Amino acid sequence: MLKVPEHQVAGHQAIDGNLGPLIDDSGRFYKPLQDGERGTKELGFYHSLSSVSDTRVPDHIRRFFPGFYGSQVLEASDGSGLRPHLVLQDLVSNHINPCILDVKMGSRTWYPEASDDYIQRCLEKDRTTTTVSLGFRISGLQIYENKESGFWKPARKDVLSFTADDVRLVLGKFVSSNSNANAKPDCCFAHSVYGGPAGVLEQLLELKTWFEDQTIYHFHSSSLLILFDKESLLKGRTRFAEVKLIDFAHVEEGKGVIDHNFLGGLCSFINFISQLLSDLKESTMKKCLCNHK
Amino acid sequence: MLKVPEHQVAGHQAIDGNLGPLIDDSGRFYKPLQDGERGTKELGFYHSLSSVSDTRVPDHIRRFFPGFYGSQVLEASDGSGLRPHLVLQDLVSNHINPCILDVKMGSRTWYPEASDDYIQRCLEKDRTTTTVSLGFRISGLQIYENKESGFWKPARKDVLSFTADDVRLVLGKFVSSNSNANAKPDCCFAHSVYGGPAGVLEQLLELKTWFEDQTIYHFHSSSLLILFDKESLLKGRTRFAEVKLIDFAHVEEGKGVIDHNFLGGLCSFINFISQLLSDLKESTMKKCLCNHK
Repeated sequence: MLKVPEHQVAGHQAIDGNLGPLIDDSGRFYKPLQDGERGTKELGFYHSLSSVSDTRVPDHIRRFFPGFYGSQVLEASDGSGLRPHLVLQDLVSNHINPCILDVKMGSRTWYPEASDDYIQRCLEKDRTTTTVSLGFRISGLQIYENKESGFWKPARKDVLSFTADDVRLVLGKFVSSNSNANAKPDCCFAHSVYGGPAGVLEQLLELKTWFEDQTIYHFHSSSLLILFDKESLLKGRTRFAEVKLIDFAHVEEGKGVIDHNFLGGLCSFINFISQLLSDLKESTMKKCLCNHK
Repeated sequence: MLKVPEHQVAGHQAIDGNLGPLIDDSGRFYKPLQDGERGTKELGFYHSLSSVSDTRVPDHIRRFFPGFYGSQVLEASDGSGLRPHLVLQDLVSNHINPCILDVKMGSRTWYPEASDDYIQRCLEKDRTTTTVSLGFRISGLQIYENKESGFWKPARKDVLSFTADDVRLVLGKFVSSNSNANAKPDCCFAHSVYGGPAGVLEQLLELKTWFEDQTIYHFHSSSLLILFDKESLLKGRTRFAEVKLIDFAHVEEGKGVIDHNFLGGLCSFINFISQLLSDLKESTMKKCLCNHK
């Protein structure tokens, strides 16, 4: 039985008769193929990535991409009839209370071959969000607080108006036990989520090493998804935070050149996470009396 | 006695009554302060960098910047009268036949606070050169060939029309003994210039490490100058290639964010040099019968 994903934080949503992705109970995520070249590109990207004969992307990097199970023609969520969908892994199917951050990478979201009009529209959004200034922008998020208040999930327009300071605050809230309060985030979970040998920072550094070298793909307007299950963390279960790459409707061939646009933004995002961790080390917050650990 | 620099490869030149930099015999380079905020910014940048009290830029990084000796009011080269000039180190004063590459860094040459009109003009040039596609563009060069033919110094319009393949070719020619010929560049000097523990690649990697961390400055439209003295190399004297950062009329405060725009372009340029060196290792060119070594 297909249904609307509960934990989608960005992109088109299958509500109010709109076209959007659907999920099932078996852990699969059905993303409607976008019209024209976008859909073809995204499908082509996943096919190339999952092809056994294409070994250009090493295995330790493949794990950063959602599982791909082909395409399937389904009744579209907007009632417009049958439409091809990408069949992907539902990244949060095993999570009880997933905390999710969707970070659109790069200081430029347009691709060089786009029309002037498309470029101008992207550029306008890049300049009015943190894309140009920080090299990335948060395009959606949800943070689980507790049973009573549920999730903090700011409205899209609020997320798009984030400043550099807001981004710092949100990255702190994302790993705090008091994410809803107006109080300074306690960053209780910073070391479990961002730090450590299996944490977000190490995963980002692994991606960075690949991006310094790979000249196969240029990812335009793709996102990094950072996710962890708050419930597991609260109960002391060792489930690590995950970093995933999503949204490949604007992937282009690298033609022997690295994706300096994505890489620059990634380095900037890494610097934000590093600064947060090193600020914590230096501050009294490391003594945070966190009851949940 | 002030004179027009012989080895300037990009920027405004003091010829035909135009405003441009001058040099003297003592190894100093006099750069006219640009009008308005640009001049003030560049002077402010050099003052901050050379201030003893400002220790934010470590010593091993300061060496990448030209020496700064203050400002001086001089008769401008365009005959317009007295004008303040930056007094800088003349980077080629000790070179007999300097080979020079001026590489404007970043996939974006405009700064976020610029006027819409200025941004559109920069964007147009960024899109029609390799700035957007490669994250940098060669904005000028000269390569010494030999006594008979002197320097190869392509016209500005030809340099600005370089493609990715042209850039690869020029990076090869830059370190070849047959730079003028239509023959495949022999890359005889690649290992002496780009490789080794004091070579260009190592210097670029040192800069990269700094750019991954520094959040003091954002360099817009600045250049990396790569230079070496062909005469010394031909005579087997051990004078190493130098990497310098120049042109700071559009430096902005980093405000706690890394310069992801410069860094992305730097990583891309590093990848070009690395690819050239590793192609050489794999090809028979490593057996290059170079009489000059």
